[in-house]
Amino acid sequence: MARFFVETLPEAGATFRLDGENAKHAKVLRLRPDEEITLCDGAARECVCRFLGGEDFLAGEAAGSPGEPAISAAVYLAFPKADKLEHVIQKATELGATEIVAFPTRFCVSRPDEKSLKNKLERWQKIAQSAAEQSRRGRIPAVRALPSYAAALKEAAQAELPILFYENEKSRTLRAAIEAGPFRTVSLMTGAEGGFAEDEIAQAEAAGLQICTLGARILRCETAPLAALSALMYAAGEL
Amino acid sequence: MARFFVETLPEAGATFRLDGENAKHAKVLRLRPDEEITLCDGAARECVCRFLGGEDFLAGEAAGSPGEPAISAAVYLAFPKADKLEHVIQKATELGATEIVAFPTRFCVSRPDEKSLKNKLERWQKIAQSAAEQSRRGRIPAVRALPSYAAALKEAAQAELPILFYENEKSRTLRAAIEAGPFRTVSLMTGAEGGFAEDEIAQAEAAGLQICTLGARILRCETAPLAALSALMYAAGEL
Repeated sequence: MARFFVETLPEAGATFRLDGENAKHAKVLRLRPDEEITLCDGAARECVCRFLGGEDFLAGEAAGSPGEPAISAAVYLAFPKADKLEHVIQKATELGATEIVAFPTRFCVSRPDEKSLKNKLERWQKIAQSAAEQSRRGRIPAVRALPSYAAALKEAAQAELPILFYENEKSRTLRAAIEAGPFRTVSLMTGAEGGFAEDEIAQAEAAGLQICTLGARILRCETAPLAALSALMYAAGEL
Repeated sequence: MARFFVETLPEAGATFRLDGENAKHAKVLRLRPDEEITLCDGAARECVCRFLGGEDFLAGEAAGSPGEPAISAAVYLAFPKADKLEHVIQKATELGATEIVAFPTRFCVSRPDEKSLKNKLERWQKIAQSAAEQSRRGRIPAVRALPSYAAALKEAAQAELPILFYENEKSRTLRAAIEAGPFRTVSLMTGAEGGFAEDEIAQAEAAGLQICTLGARILRCETAPLAALSALMYAAGEL
């Protein structure tokens, strides 16, 4: 069933029309009368609507999105090269992330300037929306950029389970962190191509993040956040 | 430490030189005397070797590769479009797959012909080797192509835990399959862009595969095998 994100859901029983991009998309689908679509508000509420013909739809009862994980997982990643960031945004959305936050670290090679960032954030948000539609998410993850590593640490630390993955950490595992207790919000932080500097790790520990390993194999910077998110969703019964 | 795959490991204490691509790669690294490299036979044995200067190295004692997972996980995926297959080969290698096997299904859009397949397999194997070097694997996963879905099912079913992921399966989870018992070998089978036909699922069940869901979100064909592999490696204590 096709899926459309709208600002607000119509009242149950109301007749309505789609507008803008949604109207174009619906036209391309060549719906037949009585075919159904899903309208979603992007904040985990949705309703099934019936096509009446012409441009008209009949709104159904709204309910919580079945495609939303019960756990809230934020992906914090140091700016990688552009194509990798777009890749992570798309995949992390499919895998159920609540938000995707990019930030600079000392070894970042790629670091968008203030001027280009606004356009980029719009582009990234569209990638998240499109992936949310395709994967039947009820929520469009927010894609954000923070100006500093310190700001990222401060935010990430607010989750009940804040983790930073570091390739030189050998003993503390993601599993140990997950099994240590119940949590509803998680931050998963990973580095860029060049990894983290040692003092950045000390800074993260001081901010309250747990430093964990992702196993004996060295994962690329675009693979690590998605492997961690997959593992977390598995542990939370969502995969 | 730089990592080189060779046909056979030198005897401990022997002086040796690298050849071919490895020699070129070593030259680029501009090693200094007493710097160390790792030689690996691609079959999970490796030794640390010391650079003596010129082109000479001194071989150390061989041992098992610490980067190899204890579990053997084969990724079986229906031919997706070419760039997606290359993506899965690279990422599945990083994540610890033992082999990556592609095969046709009814709804496959992409299906390389016999003639181009030989060149493609060589290219795919190189992607696996390069990813194995970067991620510090001790084994280069074999990349293979099978001529039919039936052949893929027959092979995949030989694992102690053979699973096929199907988007219309709603109840049986990967976790239930994993927790049902001990296993050392796993097959993870996923479909192409168009998914599986219903009778293909019946055929897989008859062949002995377990049909599982990957959760409420619909994953793209290049995301599903990597999410499943990440989850499996997490469950096996490898992530």
